[in-house]
Amino acid sequence: MIGAVQIPCGVAGPVLISGDYLDGKSYLPMATTEGALLASVNRGCSVISDAGGASVRVLKSGMARAPVFRVDDVAAVEALCEWVDNNEERLMSAAEGTTSHGEVLDITPYSVGRSVYLRFRYDTKDAMGMNMATIATEAACELIEAETTAKLVALSGNLCTDKKPAAMNAIEGRGHSVTADITIPTAQLTERLHTTPAAFAEVNTRKNLVGSAKAGSLGFNAHVANVVAGIFLATGQDEAQVVESANAITTAEVRDDGLYLSVTLPSLEVGTVGGGTTLPMQSEALEMIGVKGGGDPPGTNAKGLAEAITVGCLAGELSLIAALSSQHLSSAHTALGRE
Amino acid sequence: MIGAVQIPCGVAGPVLISGDYLDGKSYLPMATTEGALLASVNRGCSVISDAGGASVRVLKSGMARAPVFRVDDVAAVEALCEWVDNNEERLMSAAEGTTSHGEVLDITPYSVGRSVYLRFRYDTKDAMGMNMATIATEAACELIEAETTAKLVALSGNLCTDKKPAAMNAIEGRGHSVTADITIPTAQLTERLHTTPAAFAEVNTRKNLVGSAKAGSLGFNAHVANVVAGIFLATGQDEAQVVESANAITTAEVRDDGLYLSVTLPSLEVGTVGGGTTLPMQSEALEMIGVKGGGDPPGTNAKGLAEAITVGCLAGELSLIAALSSQHLSSAHTALGRE
Amino acid sequence: MIGAVQIPCGVAGPVLISGDYLDGKSYLPMATTEGALLASVNRGCSVISDAGGASVRVLKSGMARAPVFRVDDVAAVEALCEWVDNNEERLMSAAEGTTSHGEVLDITPYSVGRSVYLRFRYDTKDAMGMNMATIATEAACELIEAETTAKLVALSGNLCTDKKPAAMNAIEGRGHSVTADITIPTAQLTERLHTTPAAFAEVNTRKNLVGSAKAGSLGFNAHVANVVAGIFLATGQDEAQVVESANAITTAEVRDDGLYLSVTLPSLEVGTVGGGTTLPMQSEALEMIGVKGGGDPPGTNAKGLAEAITVGCLAGELSLIAALSSQHLSSAHTALGRE
Amino acid sequence: MIGAVQIPCGVAGPVLISGDYLDGKSYLPMATTEGALLASVNRGCSVISDAGGASVRVLKSGMARAPVFRVDDVAAVEALCEWVDNNEERLMSAAEGTTSHGEVLDITPYSVGRSVYLRFRYDTKDAMGMNMATIATEAACELIEAETTAKLVALSGNLCTDKKPAAMNAIEGRGHSVTADITIPTAQLTERLHTTPAAFAEVNTRKNLVGSAKAGSLGFNAHVANVVAGIFLATGQDEAQVVESANAITTAEVRDDGLYLSVTLPSLEVGTVGGGTTLPMQSEALEMIGVKGGGDPPGTNAKGLAEAITVGCLAGELSLIAALSSQHLSSAHTALGRE
Repeated sequence: MIGAVQIPCGVAGPVLISGDYLDGKSYLPMATTEGALLASVNRGCSVISDAGGASVRVLKSGMARAPVFRVDDVAAVEALCEWVDNNEERLMSAAEGTTSHGEVLDITPYSVGRSVYLRFRYDTKDAMGMNMATIATEAACELIEAETTAKLVALSGNLCTDKKPAAMNAIEGRGHSVTADITIPTAQLTERLHTTPAAFAEVNTRKNLVGSAKAGSLGFNAHVANVVAGIFLATGQDEAQVVESANAITTAEVRDDGLYLSVTLPSLEVGTVGGGTTLPMQSEALEMIGVKGGGDPPGTNAKGLAEAITVGCLAGELSLIAALSSQHLSSAHTALGRE
Repeated sequence: MIGAVQIPCGVAGPVLISGDYLDGKSYLPMATTEGALLASVNRGCSVISDAGGASVRVLKSGMARAPVFRVDDVAAVEALCEWVDNNEERLMSAAEGTTSHGEVLDITPYSVGRSVYLRFRYDTKDAMGMNMATIATEAACELIEAETTAKLVALSGNLCTDKKPAAMNAIEGRGHSVTADITIPTAQLTERLHTTPAAFAEVNTRKNLVGSAKAGSLGFNAHVANVVAGIFLATGQDEAQVVESANAITTAEVRDDGLYLSVTLPSLEVGTVGGGTTLPMQSEALEMIGVKGGGDPPGTNAKGLAEAITVGCLAGELSLIAALSSQHLSSAHTALGRE
Repeated sequence: MIGAVQIPCGVAGPVLISGDYLDGKSYLPMATTEGALLASVNRGCSVISDAGGASVRVLKSGMARAPVFRVDDVAAVEALCEWVDNNEERLMSAAEGTTSHGEVLDITPYSVGRSVYLRFRYDTKDAMGMNMATIATEAACELIEAETTAKLVALSGNLCTDKKPAAMNAIEGRGHSVTADITIPTAQLTERLHTTPAAFAEVNTRKNLVGSAKAGSLGFNAHVANVVAGIFLATGQDEAQVVESANAITTAEVRDDGLYLSVTLPSLEVGTVGGGTTLPMQSEALEMIGVKGGGDPPGTNAKGLAEAITVGCLAGELSLIAALSSQHLSSAHTALGRE
Repeated sequence: MIGAVQIPCGVAGPVLISGDYLDGKSYLPMATTEGALLASVNRGCSVISDAGGASVRVLKSGMARAPVFRVDDVAAVEALCEWVDNNEERLMSAAEGTTSHGEVLDITPYSVGRSVYLRFRYDTKDAMGMNMATIATEAACELIEAETTAKLVALSGNLCTDKKPAAMNAIEGRGHSVTADITIPTAQLTERLHTTPAAFAEVNTRKNLVGSAKAGSLGFNAHVANVVAGIFLATGQDEAQVVESANAITTAEVRDDGLYLSVTLPSLEVGTVGGGTTLPMQSEALEMIGVKGGGDPPGTNAKGLAEAITVGCLAGELSLIAALSSQHLSSAHTALGRE
């Protein structure tokens, strides 16, 4: 180690949030070398607050680790899956013996040829949980190797899926699956963001839905990664997990009463204890959001952080898509950030 | 802005690199809250150097921006594509009029229904180039709107594809498309990394190839994102572009003379001028690699940085897959980083 | 209707199969305008039988239908998912009230913004089951609309996923998830197919694994679609379901005792009752395989058909990859079929 | 061969088409065991004709074959790509020497590690062209092997991509890339199909765009595969190519004057000469469409067939999405076909 790199850090907001874990006004600390990004998210936060605030829900949680085993042939695949099914409680017990907080949620088998992947999902409370999940899974693997003919090939078989963009996470979730949404009154959208619900929705459809479809993309949004990366750095999260944490679908609809906007992040991997969260500035940033350290009850701080990030993404999408739909993207780069 | 967040920064290497832009021993600065990651990459660098060094090549370069237009119907789609083809030089000229360095490489049309996406690719020299590409493309769009009936819907239509994981980038590239490879003699692999070419290749196949295939992943590697994120932060790159920059395929083969290992990054988006590269620590980090500021001739520094990062990823893959194949992943977390 | 189109039909095999539903020699009827395809599959069948026969297992079964609902916002999403969880038995009962054979296996909620998708999975016994699943799901939807504020938008919301290539099916399965495998002794591979385990495995890795990865493909095989389409037509299956039924991963490994080859089809949608299975020639084809009509116990005939098709795919992969690895693909087109 | 299987065949239409190759009323022969499918497509055809007919354009054409080569390392990858670039005309000449009709359009290199894939694209006129492309590419490969150190591993390296669902085809096209569209007046949509533009567009967005996105699908449509498979069988196309030919994006928008509906098929692989097109019934079916045998000038018949199929898909999407949006899918199964 040779010291530390400094990343400029600012705060967007406050933004009014109505969630299960955050309720009221929150500030969003973001570390970024792109000052315009903060201004853009800030603009979104202001409009969201004036429109009554964003709703947000953590709909599913669970950190996954999926070791890969080799067995002799497909008959042995079937036998191993049956063994796992019959010994689920023992496997859970072995895994949970390694951790004071974590709980195994479920164990799902997948296979290709004679490779068997067992996807263990854990409730890791306020920890992001990769270390906990890895150590616990290793203990379960030892039981499998001791009692079956299966040979552990790798403790991670990429069906977890960690730090790669995968449909597995987009469909089944990893970390926290979170949606934030809001309806912005037409008058406000017009006055504050110089666009209309119809123009905004058209950008979202042609760019985020149809454009992403044509691009063979797993992400259907404008710039969720900017916000995720910014808050991740500010709060001491694992920066490489931006890859899957930023995977998101943004939807926009014209409603009678304005524009409905939502952003859904299926695999937002965050924690408020462990890793970089204990560094000084990062710890302060968590405190600013009100989610520093272990929550009471356990898990509520990590979920609160997930709510804050998702609302930040909603603000970023609102601001950038509005800017695009009023045709000022590149001139707005100085003022409003960029994708 | 409220100040700056500090991310611990270390240096891996030196590692022996044989590229078109880097030739000799290079150090790899990485900012990460995960100290074990540095140790892991460092171990990989050491083995690579002892094996004679890694080869690396930038095989394709070009920063893309793809605006989306709406026309009236499919007949108008055909007409617009013809107009673009007939006016390619004028479009290039309009785009290049906005920049002193950038050059348009090509303009490729894609369409879905009556949405037309024009993917402009630029040689942006030592800049990562998103701003340059956006401003230049906007000028070309003005020409299109002035002379055709096409209506610009958004300056970015997600076929670029920026900050989302997309097959478009994986197939056609964005930023720099780079491959690094090496053959590690069997004796060295055994002595230094406690594994064999066959055991290593088995992990790579069952995890990185078959596991990723089953997961519906666009990434077929172990933890390339860790290295990309670490060097990105240290050198002032756009942290949100880790999403597509870390997309990679790792291959491993048993050869007569040992293990052949390669890593291919199709869309590594980096620059050595502009953005966060001018910050003090980040600038020092670029200098340490020998790629600070504009290159001579222009573009050589950005490509050198791309080479360094890709070799760093090769070192990271070598070390982690070896650790997995010797079955010590989780205990090695402290010492060797993690996926 | 103006009559009928005639597709030439042949028979490959017999091939020795060791499954849970088929055990012994089976013939494989295939309808195709490509005579060489039959010769190719036939060659594969012959080598498989001489090597002791293929193993095959149906590892998971379930026909899915996923309606999409609209609710007011994300808070209502959470409420609907809870309602579904609390009323699962009533939903199952409503669905099962429409069918004498079908059983609901599970109901899994997914959501994006305020769109909620409920994926119902059914054991449809010997029927392919789309009609049964659709009718049963409609009854459950009526209960949901009657007792909640959710509005049914479409009875199929594309998370089913029917007749589109989707990671959902590749990961979680639809219809039958089946793997067939075999180990071919080296001597036999060399004498009969003029290739070696190493050369065969190299083709599989560079083409089916790495090539497919680079292509952004959901299919990692050589020509499974040829065999699936041929047997589907011969046995009266839904020809449009070739799209997802042919999705497959082929693996090949060098073993001490020869070449290990497997093919895994996660979403093979077949039935032996209903639809085209009652047409005269199609019915004869099912009889030839020994799976005509309803099985005893119910479901065993559909699963037997799934086993037969998967082993046919194994034979096809064996033959074509061997041909490629002995570098005679295009000259072999006349004799051995084509991809 | 043991004879032939008979698939019931009907005719949908006539439907009014305005294309570059078909202009006027066309009948659409379809072979299917699902009678309701014909009724559904027929209903769509009728509404399309009454609304003034569908527009359709073939926007790109080219049959691809991509062999995979192995070279020594990444330096050799770079050298091979340069050699191919410098010898493009010789490669084209070698390829074209094998065919009286085919022309090489371009040769695009892709690589992963030391595997090099060269994607040859051909204008194959009225032939679907896989055989032509394979034989021609083999000749070019011989030149490469004779003059470089590259070793051909397989004549098809899966970047073609044949008979697998791949983003490569969805993005760059294969066979014919075709879009059909129409605007249906609101009154007609309401009277004939019992739905509204807004209700129709909502189904399309929540199901075909957002639902497919969440499912990790490469296909964003309702049941294009049904129509593609039906016309493929009736006209003697390769039934296994339904896999990629049916890959499509359907878009629906509310316009001032009604509903805009489009369907885009990027990789529709069809021919009017060779293969099954010469069988008696299949030949009659092609004649009914007016595209039997070689066109004058060459290629116009295959493109005309591509136009007919795409308009058939538009009719199918119109009818089924309308049925879904008027909430009668499963009861309509008897009358209107199914997804």
